[in-house]
Amino acid sequence: MGRVTERRRVVRVRNGAVSTRPDTLVAEEPLEIRLNGKPLAITMRTPGDDFALAAGFLVSEGVLARPEELATIVYCAGATADGGNTYNVVDVRLAPGVPLPDITLERNVYTTSSCGLCGKASLDAVRTTARWPVGDDAGAPVRVSAGTLAALPDRLRAAQRVFDRTGGLHAAALFTPDGELLDVTEDVGRHNAVDKLVGRAFRAGLLPLHQAVLLVSGRASFELAQKAVMAGIPVLAAVSAPSSLAVDLAVETGLSLVGFLRGSSMNVYAGEHRLVLDDDEEHRAVAGTGAEGAAGPDA
Amino acid sequence: MGRVTERRRVVRVRNGAVSTRPDTLVAEEPLEIRLNGKPLAITMRTPGDDFALAAGFLVSEGVLARPEELATIVYCAGATADGGNTYNVVDVRLAPGVPLPDITLERNVYTTSSCGLCGKASLDAVRTTARWPVGDDAGAPVRVSAGTLAALPDRLRAAQRVFDRTGGLHAAALFTPDGELLDVTEDVGRHNAVDKLVGRAFRAGLLPLHQAVLLVSGRASFELAQKAVMAGIPVLAAVSAPSSLAVDLAVETGLSLVGFLRGSSMNVYAGEHRLVLDDDEEHRAVAGTGAEGAAGPDA
Repeated sequence: MGRVTERRRVVRVRNGAVSTRPDTLVAEEPLEIRLNGKPLAITMRTPGDDFALAAGFLVSEGVLARPEELATIVYCAGATADGGNTYNVVDVRLAPGVPLPDITLERNVYTTSSCGLCGKASLDAVRTTARWPVGDDAGAPVRVSAGTLAALPDRLRAAQRVFDRTGGLHAAALFTPDGELLDVTEDVGRHNAVDKLVGRAFRAGLLPLHQAVLLVSGRASFELAQKAVMAGIPVLAAVSAPSSLAVDLAVETGLSLVGFLRGSSMNVYAGEHRLVLDDDEEHRAVAGTGAEGAAGPDA
Repeated sequence: MGRVTERRRVVRVRNGAVSTRPDTLVAEEPLEIRLNGKPLAITMRTPGDDFALAAGFLVSEGVLARPEELATIVYCAGATADGGNTYNVVDVRLAPGVPLPDITLERNVYTTSSCGLCGKASLDAVRTTARWPVGDDAGAPVRVSAGTLAALPDRLRAAQRVFDRTGGLHAAALFTPDGELLDVTEDVGRHNAVDKLVGRAFRAGLLPLHQAVLLVSGRASFELAQKAVMAGIPVLAAVSAPSSLAVDLAVETGLSLVGFLRGSSMNVYAGEHRLVLDDDEEHRAVAGTGAEGAAGPDA
């Protein structure tokens, strides 16, 4: 479980000077996810938190939503020719009565992509498989201020442990609407980082994440927006650019989507009703809805 | 074919000022790749160059190697319920006699990942499917100087057209050993950018790319190293970090792998026999092997 980084020999060139030394790299290994004993997906991931990754992947696929739907997750012994355990194969057993996804050959193309949900590429598919709405706008709607959002990237970076050593990891984090860090994950694949985050919350019985802000260290692709939607997360913020389909999905599902979150600047592509973007509105929001989890100005 | 970017409304926040305007985003849409009429893979890609993407993907999968193995690539009409053409489904027909990959259900898990080859996750699988060695060290071995490598990222950036407008694209480029740009591609998925590059070369009859340097704008993952190996490319350079498995694959196959290529600095993780890293050696290389395509000092 401790293979998050590995050491390799490297030849360094710095301004014409050549030296050889050991270097720390982010570990990358395949994880095969089996569902009730049958291979479902393989993803290249950073080892560790594999049960959360498998559970989160199945949440993103619409297979799992509530802890009682999951029976067990185990590493498969005997996965190698000599019967050894590689710790690179996990088997997820669903509770009795939980429907299996339709894994015919044709469907398999859609469900086993190691890019997570990127196979279920139509917006329709997300609408039909989502177990919850995005956020909880009827009950306790989330409100997040621009000041709070602006502070999140620094908090994410401060919480990233492996990146500083390897420079090779994507990170994802969950925050409260007023900017408190709830959890952070790192992985060589950014979809894995989000699956691990969602999987941990699933295993802790915290889904849907109606009061959470998801921050990702890179771009906001369709699949990351989809994972947020499937977990019920109301706000997705990305340090870099979103894609057109991520924006379309956010608009259709009501997800608040923020991109290019840098310093005090940001772009809001969808769901601005949850965001308090100027100072005046910010003060009104604090005065009017403070008891319902609205965000105050970030100190 | 012109859907590389799309326009969406965006709310911009800059230092507390809020404004609404149209913004240019990188386009992202699913592409289903069918092989002889059967669904094989779906990838989220930036539309355009789809035939090259499909061909390059199949080169990476070990299905295609030489132009005569390919019969046709067409967009599938009738892919939608109303019989329309989405231009999001392509069918690749192999020439008679070319063996189909083994797409049983169990195998399918390994071969249809939209992360390209990341399912075929063992180093063994790459060794057994590669049609060529990496590079051509017996015939005309490639030699690349540190100065030449250092100049590549700026040349890639100068050749990137869409990134400046969207900030949302990964880029990949092929260079000659002395740093001349051969081709560049951009895509929302970095594996797609490399598949498009390899697919174009395949369609032009240029495989194996024994005299090319592949530069990628981000990190060097296992799958990108694998795609380089499958195309016969001898040198892979990345602006950012490699993963442990990318390094392992490079060491096993003899691929030269350079990471953290920034300014005059770089890290060499494997295959340094093709690289001329210090000035003295650089001059010797130029004097000794200039006629064989060795790199001179970069002006």
